[in-house]
Amino acid sequence: MNPEELTAYLHEKIPLTRAMELRVASANAAEFVVCAPLEANHNHLGTAFGGSLSALATVAGYAFIWHELGEASAHVVIRDSLMNFRRPVRSELRAICVPPQREDLESFRLDFARTGKARLKLAVQIGSSSDITAEFLGTYVALR
Amino acid sequence: MNPEELTAYLHEKIPLTRAMELRVASANAAEFVVCAPLEANHNHLGTAFGGSLSALATVAGYAFIWHELGEASAHVVIRDSLMNFRRPVRSELRAICVPPQREDLESFRLDFARTGKARLKLAVQIGSSSDITAEFLGTYVALR
Repeated sequence: MNPEELTAYLHEKIPLTRAMELRVASANAAEFVVCAPLEANHNHLGTAFGGSLSALATVAGYAFIWHELGEASAHVVIRDSLMNFRRPVRSELRAICVPPQREDLESFRLDFARTGKARLKLAVQIGSSSDITAEFLGTYVALR
Repeated sequence: MNPEELTAYLHEKIPLTRAMELRVASANAAEFVVCAPLEANHNHLGTAFGGSLSALATVAGYAFIWHELGEASAHVVIRDSLMNFRRPVRSELRAICVPPQREDLESFRLDFARTGKARLKLAVQIGSSSDITAEFLGTYVALR
């Protein structure tokens, strides 16, 4: 799925992503980015709401795995997540899914193909790689 | 603030809480509960979206602290959060803020009064105390 198809899929399946005005900005091996405007996602201080940042990072991980498996129908769930808020976010919310190590991704694909069940840890950075404002680490499980 | 006032404050200040149809169900020393309907917060599998659960728990912590300090104007931020998803949530999303130990709460109030800055760790349970479907642990900082 390309970014537009992934965005449409998310808006259809997870209504909160529509309310967040979330969109997949890029979805390829080199860069996987999901964004949302501050306007729909601010908090009582006018900066990004922590819950919106957690939701954005969670979705970035889901979308990365669907894209990776090449099938949005895979039953993907999140097991745990850790969020570290370094500094307030004062502009567009931007989540970058860090590509996992090649061997981790290969084990994930192989486990999924062989057993129909696979687990993957994904790191997501909020901001840009040179200016990280928050960090997320999530464990996802894919089931056929 | 009573539950209705807290709900109205949240809807006004954090627009995503309105989209989530989030409401503070009870806000007193014995019980602090924040809810949201599944309809507005489901995922691609028809169960509660992990991002909605994280956002709900985050808000439960914020609201607990505002209620505790008796002033919604306190500058409260979240530093980090940990979410552990045990099982899918198939009905209304319900977050219960676990009352902190009395001495932790007293240190928090004292630090805030003395120095204008205080830190508090809050545990939030999703589900009911007898049937916890997910757990959240967040560190909040209040500044005057």
